[in-house]
Amino acid sequence: MIYLDHAAATPVDRRVLEAMEPYFAEKFYNPSAAYLPAKEVSADYEAAKATIAHAIGAKASDLVITAGATEANNLAFTCLKPREYPSFSERSLAPVVTGIGRSVFATSANMLLERGHSSRLLYLVTEHDSVRRVAEQYGGEAIGVLPNGLIDLEELKRKITDETELISVSLANNELGTIQPLAEVARIIREVKLERMKRGLKRQLLLHSDASQALNLLDINVARLGVDLMTLNAAKVYGPKGVGALYVSHEAKLSPLTYGGGQENGLRSGTENVPGVIGFAEAVRMAKEHLNGNRKKYAAWRKILLSELQGYELINKQHALDSFVVLCYNDVDAERLVFLLEEKGVYVATGAACAASKGVKSHVLKAIGLTNEQIAGSLRLTVGETNTEEQIYEAAKIINGVIEGEYDRCSG
Amino acid sequence: MIYLDHAAATPVDRRVLEAMEPYFAEKFYNPSAAYLPAKEVSADYEAAKATIAHAIGAKASDLVITAGATEANNLAFTCLKPREYPSFSERSLAPVVTGIGRSVFATSANMLLERGHSSRLLYLVTEHDSVRRVAEQYGGEAIGVLPNGLIDLEELKRKITDETELISVSLANNELGTIQPLAEVARIIREVKLERMKRGLKRQLLLHSDASQALNLLDINVARLGVDLMTLNAAKVYGPKGVGALYVSHEAKLSPLTYGGGQENGLRSGTENVPGVIGFAEAVRMAKEHLNGNRKKYAAWRKILLSELQGYELINKQHALDSFVVLCYNDVDAERLVFLLEEKGVYVATGAACAASKGVKSHVLKAIGLTNEQIAGSLRLTVGETNTEEQIYEAAKIINGVIEGEYDRCSG
Repeated sequence: MIYLDHAAATPVDRRVLEAMEPYFAEKFYNPSAAYLPAKEVSADYEAAKATIAHAIGAKASDLVITAGATEANNLAFTCLKPREYPSFSERSLAPVVTGIGRSVFATSANMLLERGHSSRLLYLVTEHDSVRRVAEQYGGEAIGVLPNGLIDLEELKRKITDETELISVSLANNELGTIQPLAEVARIIREVKLERMKRGLKRQLLLHSDASQALNLLDINVARLGVDLMTLNAAKVYGPKGVGALYVSHEAKLSPLTYGGGQENGLRSGTENVPGVIGFAEAVRMAKEHLNGNRKKYAAWRKILLSELQGYELINKQHALDSFVVLCYNDVDAERLVFLLEEKGVYVATGAACAASKGVKSHVLKAIGLTNEQIAGSLRLTVGETNTEEQIYEAAKIINGVIEGEYDRCSG
Repeated sequence: MIYLDHAAATPVDRRVLEAMEPYFAEKFYNPSAAYLPAKEVSADYEAAKATIAHAIGAKASDLVITAGATEANNLAFTCLKPREYPSFSERSLAPVVTGIGRSVFATSANMLLERGHSSRLLYLVTEHDSVRRVAEQYGGEAIGVLPNGLIDLEELKRKITDETELISVSLANNELGTIQPLAEVARIIREVKLERMKRGLKRQLLLHSDASQALNLLDINVARLGVDLMTLNAAKVYGPKGVGALYVSHEAKLSPLTYGGGQENGLRSGTENVPGVIGFAEAVRMAKEHLNGNRKKYAAWRKILLSELQGYELINKQHALDSFVVLCYNDVDAERLVFLLEEKGVYVATGAACAASKGVKSHVLKAIGLTNEQIAGSLRLTVGETNTEEQIYEAAKIINGVIEGEYDRCSG
């Protein structure tokens, strides 16, 4: 088996699971309980949060632990809630889910029309659904990308108005691996804020970034990147599923998504997922320890894939995470390829897993200007810790074989 | 060590952990991915949901998996969101959390004044914070309890108006273990609905119940109980922390708390916590299998405690789960008792863990009419699977000794 879909899911590392294990059955106490063993669990939990925070140059108290990146992204956008004038109405924008089967989403365009003024929220058109769908709830406006997948900074500058309060740009895209120039976006934001200050306009302007895909591949420091809100995800970096975090700077004022016992500074109630956070911390520690080694290894594997594979067009040519290879084959149905490769024990993706499962064409590949035919022939290969160099060569051979077979079938 | 705080947290059972383990590092695939091993994981996940649902007489598609009971309670209350006329405004009611340290909650009283009509939501005054705090967000009105902890059904009947849409009553209270007469509440609701129908008034009237504490101690069937929404929690029944579920009947129309990839029928986006749900299902399976045995065992232990312990006043005399013994000692500070017992290896609680950790006096004990002094001297002992009969005798001896010491100290 050769798994080349590490952007969709990563296995929990052995050391992560070992770190978690004592917290399932032995140190299982409720961190809020009054007796010493519970207080020790609480201290371990806080120490784990500090480890995660430290890895991005923050403090434990700057983090809100969530059930994953989706919740963290949703929580980040609540900075748009406590507003003086009525531009966001939960009542009219909330999609109604009938029974629990069908959901109807209001569109961002409709809301803009209704509200008749420019948007408080700008987000990159290539963002993951957990940003896009939330952005639509807030009537957000999309910023386009250049054909290389990078944010169109000129469009960003044009679209920032006095109404703008939040800009959301992922650190690395989940379909292409494209690394966005966040520090540059932060610089633009600083200029706007300075200019607003001169005019006496007091309005927040925050930068949010979903860094789910990047934590084990880029050196992330919230101050250097200039972000106010940042989403992290354990499950993409060999940590457990169901755990994520939101970094929250002192400038960002959030509202809870859920209410209850007041855990996580009142922003995220519920008994703490102690084993999950202990595992997350170990995953982050490992990610940081092996950052440079992994990058070199993945860059070498990317090179091997690009030289060994045949007859493809490379889509993510530049600015991509080393672990991402996105290809396109002419006149080939990628969904069929996934199936044929699966039969030979090679697991790859056609796009984001959640989009793919719904048969939706990738909005990311569309945004960078690919034709429908190119999109239909696109494969995403994401290498990772389950792979070896030998596997990479083997995968290239298998993919070449399957592609040849497909071309023979079509011409035959 | 004798752990008598099973209402605060339970250890993950060995068999639960064994069931989860393959899903951390082997069957780690994203359930939304297109290749076979991922589809197998997806099938296992759905089967686990079916097991959980089956235990309460429901189908897998009736469940929304959440990160725990708090999120499930919050999600349940979204049935109040899609309303035609403006009685709930997210903008004005959302508490603003400044930085991430301080939070300001709007009070239910203020909201009622602002809105100038009776409440759409009734909830039991003794509910857990994860119901109470959400209820306050929606301007909910509390229903009192009788001195025995049971819902005041007459007050409930009086408070139901044409505006009422949701009634939230936990199946068993988390501080007293009081089992509420849910079927009776459901009967009252049916009568009101029938009467409304006759008058042509089309307005939902739903019954929500937080069953977190009861899943392994009561035979729960959603149809028999007559609930439309029910909250379940893995972490209270020897399953993993960070996993819960909301049962949603076809009558209940909810809005998502978070948006994203559209998992859980669009109501709860985010990559599924597969190991967590597998573990939850195993915990539920075990709970059902050992239901009668456990009840008998815990009832016997409760009897032992009541006969061996000395000089106490029993608070939860009737209608309580067999595992709950809530006591009160005159002129003794229960917080000091927790500390003294901890030193002798006996772990008990003074109230709900999250309330206790904030030094807040129990609203539950207050609601059943206890004086401040009684509340200050109250202990909650909750037995469970970590205990043996020998431990129960031993715990009673240790508690008696500590109490004697305290009385000696005071009189000495």
